[in-house]
Amino acid sequence: MLPTIATIGSMARQSTDVGSERILMGHGAGGRRMHRLITEMFIRRFGNPVLSRLDDAAVLPTLRGRQAVSTDTFVVDPLFFPGGDIGKLAVCGTVNDVAMMGGDPRHLTLGFVMREGLELEALDRICRSIAATAKRAGVQVVTGDTKVIEHGDDHGLYINTTGFGPVPSRLVLGTEAVRSGDAVIINGPIGEHEAAVAVARGAFRFRGPVRSDCAPLNKLVKGALAVGGVRMMRDPTRGGLATTLNEVTDATGLGIVIEESAVPVSKHVRGVAGLLGLDPFYMANEGKVIVFASTAKADKVVAAMRRRATGRTSRRIGEVVREPEGVWLRTRIGSLRPLIMLEGEQLPRIC
Amino acid sequence: MLPTIATIGSMARQSTDVGSERILMGHGAGGRRMHRLITEMFIRRFGNPVLSRLDDAAVLPTLRGRQAVSTDTFVVDPLFFPGGDIGKLAVCGTVNDVAMMGGDPRHLTLGFVMREGLELEALDRICRSIAATAKRAGVQVVTGDTKVIEHGDDHGLYINTTGFGPVPSRLVLGTEAVRSGDAVIINGPIGEHEAAVAVARGAFRFRGPVRSDCAPLNKLVKGALAVGGVRMMRDPTRGGLATTLNEVTDATGLGIVIEESAVPVSKHVRGVAGLLGLDPFYMANEGKVIVFASTAKADKVVAAMRRRATGRTSRRIGEVVREPEGVWLRTRIGSLRPLIMLEGEQLPRIC
Repeated sequence: MLPTIATIGSMARQSTDVGSERILMGHGAGGRRMHRLITEMFIRRFGNPVLSRLDDAAVLPTLRGRQAVSTDTFVVDPLFFPGGDIGKLAVCGTVNDVAMMGGDPRHLTLGFVMREGLELEALDRICRSIAATAKRAGVQVVTGDTKVIEHGDDHGLYINTTGFGPVPSRLVLGTEAVRSGDAVIINGPIGEHEAAVAVARGAFRFRGPVRSDCAPLNKLVKGALAVGGVRMMRDPTRGGLATTLNEVTDATGLGIVIEESAVPVSKHVRGVAGLLGLDPFYMANEGKVIVFASTAKADKVVAAMRRRATGRTSRRIGEVVREPEGVWLRTRIGSLRPLIMLEGEQLPRIC
Repeated sequence: MLPTIATIGSMARQSTDVGSERILMGHGAGGRRMHRLITEMFIRRFGNPVLSRLDDAAVLPTLRGRQAVSTDTFVVDPLFFPGGDIGKLAVCGTVNDVAMMGGDPRHLTLGFVMREGLELEALDRICRSIAATAKRAGVQVVTGDTKVIEHGDDHGLYINTTGFGPVPSRLVLGTEAVRSGDAVIINGPIGEHEAAVAVARGAFRFRGPVRSDCAPLNKLVKGALAVGGVRMMRDPTRGGLATTLNEVTDATGLGIVIEESAVPVSKHVRGVAGLLGLDPFYMANEGKVIVFASTAKADKVVAAMRRRATGRTSRRIGEVVREPEGVWLRTRIGSLRPLIMLEGEQLPRIC
């Protein structure tokens, strides 16, 4: 719900000194102060003909075909971390969820909840990051909302994004399409996002280039789908690779065997995980996709994924089996170890 | 982003004792604990074939025609107030914004940010309220997201809703359709929502039946549109009637004259406003719509609105004029007083 303003054009031409200010309660109260924030920052960064109308709702032209729709609120702490920030994360998270269902993300809504005292300069940096990531992913911000809550104990910004986009008419993806024998593919090393956020919290000293993998995957996914043979996809965010695989075995009643030696984990992620007592298999990713593909097409799918920057090190890491049920790790010494779903005790507020 | 679970059926059949528990950080961590919350509460309350799949994104059938899309995050404090709660508000707010653009709201996404320590019983009450309001408005919850943040200084729940629905193909609504001479219509007394939230905060003693007007207006709006002659609609939420009218005059360059004696304000709202030094014209509403209609059709639009429960006391309150520009109140003694847009200092966190 954004109100209409006639002065968008003239205000956008003024230069704005947002650097010296902080968010006040009045920025969320619906009056002139909120309108200035919307026009001088949000319209300036995300402006397009639909958003700039600032009506109660955006009106989009007819959306062709089935639509994939996803919503996510981001509460990551801190707001900035190596490899990204809450803005980049908010775009990637929703773009990726739409892409996982085969949707081609086009439109995004943005809901800001800001704490009083948030620096406008930080907010503007985050807005620029949202704009850059949206451009990279090919999505448009079509409508938004701004709320302000009292000064408090955290860094002070939560962002909801809701996105949608058309799904090709004949595409069938989902757990019901998964078959015994299907290959399990991942597009790169695991645990990087959670490791980067942990390091950014600064609770311990860590030297080493740990960066979040946060990235929009819609173009990578499109390339994989073009090959054919893809049964389903899912992005292993909160709960990591192990949790996501358990969701799939829970839903299919099948088993999955993962080759421990095939799963890429960087030395630095292992280091952070070791320091914090975390298991990389349960650590969150924000730029990874697990692709289930038929044996016949698996190599071609991997090859297609490797052609994209976000999939250079794509590889098969395992296989769907009729039994044993559940998720299993074939260790380097050849034994099978169960990878169960945890109750939920990894790091909080990683996305 | 909700993960898939095979056990939905069996878990939904179990009875759940949510009364004795509170939200823990683990409810947002992606593991079993989060999955139980999703299936035992969210699926149970909002379950439908699309949502119950719990995929990364919902896939909706082809959406016919142009789509109105709106997003809103609700941070109201306290969570429960006379006449509603944050759940009812979250459904009505977005349903109404979609309806204001002529959209027929059908689908809703739900993003929860919960504070550690939130009582599950309160959450369940809010979920039941969401379900009941969604049913009344005719919208379906199609996908959702759950985040948990640390225990803190407020009551602990923020809800984002994003909604969309088709706009009739020939309908043209918007500030550009407003003409000098158009009638300004409202569906009932102003200021009730803000007054109810103020009373619920309990900072002062107030005896009197003040209830929020929070209600879905999509059916009322549909009735008004069926008459024809409607130029635009807007719901006077944050900032109230005065702010909304200023948005319209800002966008059109026209003037609006409101008859003070025609604007309904209850005795109790006047009482609360007096105690707190608020002006009812700037107080938030959550079940009001301002309709701009051609003079020729205005009486018929009012009559159509009066046929709905949410529009029994609909009436004309003013007129669009070529000049003077801006918003003016014709007082009971006949003078014109400007109704400007405030900087934004009414009550915080009213929606």
